Amino acid sequence: MPNFLKLNKDELLKIKSDLKQQYENIKKLGLNLDMSRGKPSPEQLDLSTSMLDAVNSSSNYFSKGNIDCRNYGVLDGIDEMKELMSQIMEVDKNNIIIGGNSSLSLMFDTISHFMTHGTSKDPAWIKQKDIKFLCPCPGYDRHFSITEYFGIKMIPIKMNSDGPDMDEIQKLVENDSTIKGIWCVPKYSNPQGITYSDEVVTRFAKLKPAANDFRIFWDNAYAVHGLTNHEEKLLNIFEKCEKYNSCNLPIMFCSTSKITFAGAGISAIACQGENLENLKKRFSFKIIGYDKLNQLRHYRFLKNINILKYHMKKHAQILNPKFSLVINKFNDNFSNNPILSWTNPKGGYFISVETINGCAKETVRYCKEAGLKLTSAGSTYPYGIDPNDSNIRIAPSYPDIKELGMAMDVFCLCVKLAAAEKLIKDKT
Amino acid sequence: MPNFLKLNKDELLKIKSDLKQQYENIKKLGLNLDMSRGKPSPEQLDLSTSMLDAVNSSSNYFSKGNIDCRNYGVLDGIDEMKELMSQIMEVDKNNIIIGGNSSLSLMFDTISHFMTHGTSKDPAWIKQKDIKFLCPCPGYDRHFSITEYFGIKMIPIKMNSDGPDMDEIQKLVENDSTIKGIWCVPKYSNPQGITYSDEVVTRFAKLKPAANDFRIFWDNAYAVHGLTNHEEKLLNIFEKCEKYNSCNLPIMFCSTSKITFAGAGISAIACQGENLENLKKRFSFKIIGYDKLNQLRHYRFLKNINILKYHMKKHAQILNPKFSLVINKFNDNFSNNPILSWTNPKGGYFISVETINGCAKETVRYCKEAGLKLTSAGSTYPYGIDPNDSNIRIAPSYPDIKELGMAMDVFCLCVKLAAAEKLIKDKT
Repeated sequence: MPNFLKLNKDELLKIKSDLKQQYENIKKLGLNLDMSRGKPSPEQLDLSTSMLDAVNSSSNYFSKGNIDCRNYGVLDGIDEMKELMSQIMEVDKNNIIIGGNSSLSLMFDTISHFMTHGTSKDPAWIKQKDIKFLCPCPGYDRHFSITEYFGIKMIPIKMNSDGPDMDEIQKLVENDSTIKGIWCVPKYSNPQGITYSDEVVTRFAKLKPAANDFRIFWDNAYAVHGLTNHEEKLLNIFEKCEKYNSCNLPIMFCSTSKITFAGAGISAIACQGENLENLKKRFSFKIIGYDKLNQLRHYRFLKNINILKYHMKKHAQILNPKFSLVINKFNDNFSNNPILSWTNPKGGYFISVETINGCAKETVRYCKEAGLKLTSAGSTYPYGIDPNDSNIRIAPSYPDIKELGMAMDVFCLCVKLAAAEKLIKDKT
Repeated sequence: MPNFLKLNKDELLKIKSDLKQQYENIKKLGLNLDMSRGKPSPEQLDLSTSMLDAVNSSSNYFSKGNIDCRNYGVLDGIDEMKELMSQIMEVDKNNIIIGGNSSLSLMFDTISHFMTHGTSKDPAWIKQKDIKFLCPCPGYDRHFSITEYFGIKMIPIKMNSDGPDMDEIQKLVENDSTIKGIWCVPKYSNPQGITYSDEVVTRFAKLKPAANDFRIFWDNAYAVHGLTNHEEKLLNIFEKCEKYNSCNLPIMFCSTSKITFAGAGISAIACQGENLENLKKRFSFKIIGYDKLNQLRHYRFLKNINILKYHMKKHAQILNPKFSLVINKFNDNFSNNPILSWTNPKGGYFISVETINGCAKETVRYCKEAGLKLTSAGSTYPYGIDPNDSNIRIAPSYPDIKELGMAMDVFCLCVKLAAAEKLIKDKT
């Protein structure tokens, strides 16, 4: 396949006609593939099924301190689970509150908290005018949906290869007191799979926000989710913040959704000082305690960080070939035809690709018509608006390797078809 | 023991001196009993432990429609759990959203929702001035804590033997548009154990609130929690509201916390029309789906309303003797000495008692010093202020029958001691 960018209109028309023929043939196969979300595959879920036996009718139900996990109580989680989360999050266990099965829910609730109660001395966010959040993008659609739901204006921030554009962030955060927060997925980011550099993390810790109630939402969703033997290292933002006296800034989130069960894991929030105090107070009004039996189940299955990391290697063994397949398909199709660029993650759940400008929506539409459902184009940007219409999130985890191969063939074809049409249009 | 109310000061002083001696002797026993919360006993929790085997590594993990309960998805709960909750709540399953392990959390979140987003067309509650909630009391302290946390002013409403004072409620709700809601525990109420009469429920459905955004928080926590063979019948408020065209009024809450595990049950919310639409929308931003494995576990264990009711009879067999013991102790100690009155519930988790005015706090304090922890006096009223300082909530479920006997002996002694002192003081 030639480099589309060097073809004239007639050559492109000829190629488009061939591609269209191939596309019509593929449509006839009646495929039904879903790569829209970062769902673990059944094979991955099978890795954790023995956890379901860890608490059964012939086991005991007691956590440390003789706590009956079947009954009410223990607001912030059983000690064992806090200890385990402390090892995953690299945060002192006294700074951790264990939640239910959803870290998204903890993030939603934290935003909701600041909306009605504020961070401490400053007025509730809802009572301040035109508050804003910074959104490094491409980013996680569900983050952006939460801030949109609460009417918080979102400002897109460019993502570089080592994390978000810190010059831009620093300029905005240190001069505009209406900016109240930023969404970050600092390790194996969604969707790029990049890990923030030491410099980026340090600059976050050194921020001197214009707003006292500015907070960093540090969604460490992929803390232990490497795909290779080489684990990328994320600097510990809590330690850096201690050094720069900015402990009130970060609020960290984490979960076992992609360690054990996506639908029945354990989430956690970590923060310090007044954040911890205020959120614990909120929790004391909101709930008597989250599901301790599931916490006990998790602790008994995962035990400690070493056993957990061994368990994550099994996930990597399943996921790595899928990511490799995608990267190989991209190399095969686009190494000499730069109408698509892509990231090559060493962890996480996604690959981020860039089509030529104005082709993402059309590519996703073509895929959908051929039976391949992708994450909506634009969804990696606030309000669903990708200004270049070029970013698409690829989620290789769920399909089996054969389906994934078919899916990527469909995808590569649709990328080319949309690109050819766009280039023809540009030349018309 | 004579009737204290008919004694003169000298007689009371003599009795007080005897009681004080008994009290000092009891203190020496070094008791450590906790009756502060409505916690199921270990024996009750044991009734459900086989549920833990219902989903294990050799079972399957699929709910209806081939849904893998280990993975993400299914926002409002698996069909089987909705069907079961529909039978418990007596509400169409399409009006139900299944939650996590805490119905309190669903109530907190619903209030939080109305605070920031309002009920529909009216402004968010937080943007309206001085909004108020009606609080039938004595009532459930955690309800009152939620409204207090959100800065909603609470108005106490008198509870009669058939439910809250509907004349008062109607007058307030139909004339004051700042009144936005009311907390109700309509069946086997907390703490009285009474069930609202048909007339009370009908009058709720017939309310014509001054505020469009007035809502009834119908916490049906004890829907299937009878203690005797005679189940009290609560009129279906949803059906009544359909008849009187007031379907937007009630929002019903329920959970299996006192059916299976207090710490690891399943909660649910039921509502109609715009309430359902708006809360489902909120949930779609808040969470991908609650723990479906625990839903599957519950469904496989409880199966349907008949099996569930049989299971609840086993709870009753454990609880009934405890309630009887308390009532018998009260009869023994106070049938001829009306310094204490009490309810005689046919279901639920509590007995509500009234000391003579000004004696509740002192009674609870005396109990605490003798090693018996009770629910704080006052906590059954908004802001913790019982105007008569007379109500105490008795929670007989947790201690075993021997401990409960000791606890009630301590309690009865402390009631007498506090009453004698108060009567002496009144005569001084």
